[in-house]
Amino acid sequence: MASSKAFTMAGGDAAYSYAKNSSFQRSVVDAGKELIKEAISENFDLKGLGLDTPSTVALKIADLGCSVGPNTFFAMQNIIEAVEMKFLQAKNQNLSAIEFQAFFNDHYENDFNTLFKTLPPSRKYLPAGVPGSFHGRLFPKSSLHFAHISYALHWLSKVPKEVAERNSSVRNKSSVYNSSVAEAYSTQFKNDMECFLNARAEELVPGGLMFISAGVIPDGIPVSNTRVGVFYEVLGSCLIDLVKMGVLGEEKVNSFNWPAHHATPKELEAIFKRNGKFSIEKMEKLADHSMEKPLSLKGYVLAARAVMDGLIRNHFGDESAEEIFNHFTTKAEENFSKILGVAQQYLSVFILLKRIE
Amino acid sequence: MASSKAFTMAGGDAAYSYAKNSSFQRSVVDAGKELIKEAISENFDLKGLGLDTPSTVALKIADLGCSVGPNTFFAMQNIIEAVEMKFLQAKNQNLSAIEFQAFFNDHYENDFNTLFKTLPPSRKYLPAGVPGSFHGRLFPKSSLHFAHISYALHWLSKVPKEVAERNSSVRNKSSVYNSSVAEAYSTQFKNDMECFLNARAEELVPGGLMFISAGVIPDGIPVSNTRVGVFYEVLGSCLIDLVKMGVLGEEKVNSFNWPAHHATPKELEAIFKRNGKFSIEKMEKLADHSMEKPLSLKGYVLAARAVMDGLIRNHFGDESAEEIFNHFTTKAEENFSKILGVAQQYLSVFILLKRIE
Repeated sequence: MASSKAFTMAGGDAAYSYAKNSSFQRSVVDAGKELIKEAISENFDLKGLGLDTPSTVALKIADLGCSVGPNTFFAMQNIIEAVEMKFLQAKNQNLSAIEFQAFFNDHYENDFNTLFKTLPPSRKYLPAGVPGSFHGRLFPKSSLHFAHISYALHWLSKVPKEVAERNSSVRNKSSVYNSSVAEAYSTQFKNDMECFLNARAEELVPGGLMFISAGVIPDGIPVSNTRVGVFYEVLGSCLIDLVKMGVLGEEKVNSFNWPAHHATPKELEAIFKRNGKFSIEKMEKLADHSMEKPLSLKGYVLAARAVMDGLIRNHFGDESAEEIFNHFTTKAEENFSKILGVAQQYLSVFILLKRIE
Repeated sequence: MASSKAFTMAGGDAAYSYAKNSSFQRSVVDAGKELIKEAISENFDLKGLGLDTPSTVALKIADLGCSVGPNTFFAMQNIIEAVEMKFLQAKNQNLSAIEFQAFFNDHYENDFNTLFKTLPPSRKYLPAGVPGSFHGRLFPKSSLHFAHISYALHWLSKVPKEVAERNSSVRNKSSVYNSSVAEAYSTQFKNDMECFLNARAEELVPGGLMFISAGVIPDGIPVSNTRVGVFYEVLGSCLIDLVKMGVLGEEKVNSFNWPAHHATPKELEAIFKRNGKFSIEKMEKLADHSMEKPLSLKGYVLAARAVMDGLIRNHFGDESAEEIFNHFTTKAEENFSKILGVAQQYLSVFILLKRIE
């Protein structure tokens, strides 16, 4: 049954909630539109699901880690348009007999009040908000037709115990990220993904589809040579500078964690296959226009700030956060050639999973 | 499909949201517990609903006009306990195979963030929040097994046009309530109830149950001689005093409305019968302990304030609200024998409706 634990990951929620409404996130949603249409057209089996005869039917769609909108509303609309097109093509169902129930899921700390007040007036669905971690059960068994999750899977359910515990040998002492932290995070990610996939396997109807957009790092390259790794490095050195300058306390910096793991495509594939409850129907690079433009310092700092904002504010407080953001800009400028050098070592992928029948 | 209109009834939402968490409201929930148990035991037909064979089943329960808790959580728990008892008695189903999805509904302006953060840790249901007016569609067709609505039906969907329009002949010029306003409100209530019943008839499965707790006034007594009528009178004279004293503007008082209608049992029965989509399985006085105690001035003023708070604050602002509450206490003291005289001319009823199959 539903996990009753409140969200315990320090600040992670606020962080990705904020980032979900960046223009980058919007470009990910836009890039996914055609892929979702294609996926529903080719992989959503009306006959197999008993939806091929004229009758009233309610299709249930969940957006997991939805934040406050508007990106989640665009995603929902994309899915509904694709389903309507599928039914139109099949010519066996009157569109007016189809109802959509849209479930917007995010952590208990998410601002559902804002989400509800900004629902698009012209929506074609009956909305509901579902609070709770998507690493656990959220919906009744076999009750969802579609699950959508965009740029949220990389956040871990918690800081792994060995990272969180003081004086632990893997403790993240002097930077945001290092190889021993990375291993603990990678293990946590595997466990989290297994929980995520098992929960969704119970909730999706057999034949139901899951659309995943995720940021991944290329296979075969050390994390330190990727966009994500260099970001960790710049942020880590920024924090160490601020300790040396007496702006931040050493202990405060040492206890700061960044509980995320960006997997590689191979790593994800292995996780899906080991779980075995979904077939991988598609896994491809997302044609994400924001990644095609040459990176500017300003653009980089803005995007980084959007991602950092919640985590940094939650841990360091608003005043220190401003100092961190300012110094981060200086550090990013100093390291910009390095940042540019790895800018392409990060990509968005679209993954289509189908619940095995 | 879902009405996309934001809630337009001035302040009504806040008013009853506040009142829903009064000790009075809690006593209504407690008084309903045994009646719900009896209703589910006697009127929820497992066989008719195809729930009499061992299989995984998700029962869906909605609390309409739920406010922020905790009363809505107690109501949900009461229903779930009653359903579990029914299944235990039937001995044909493993309780662990039964899942509950709980839908908490209230207006878009309701504080769902607080609702979600205070969900009981030991709950047996998968929670969801559903924003929107219960006078319109909220859920897919034939998707609910139970709907619960406690002390919310008396609030109208809007101030009727003829009351809201300036210079209208039925305009509520010098008091909160008068006979011409009453007629417009009564007509609005009939229309609202028809919308409410039609929406629920679509959403409940055939054989599904609706539990209604409501405050009603006795049949055959003029409103002015009831607890509700005398409250309107005291509040109206309080506001007129404050205009004369120069504390409130005349226009501000004239534009204040109290968009509620307390029906009589006969009136409700006629509405249910005219609608025709539900059988009235039960309609009885609720053994509500808070109504049995002799009324004290302090208790009366506290309860009245709980009910007024949102409406008064929304319309007059916080500062004037305090002056109104203070003067209301004086007026209540002056009129206390009259108040006592009609204290019993108001009762809580429990109504069980069953969706006709």
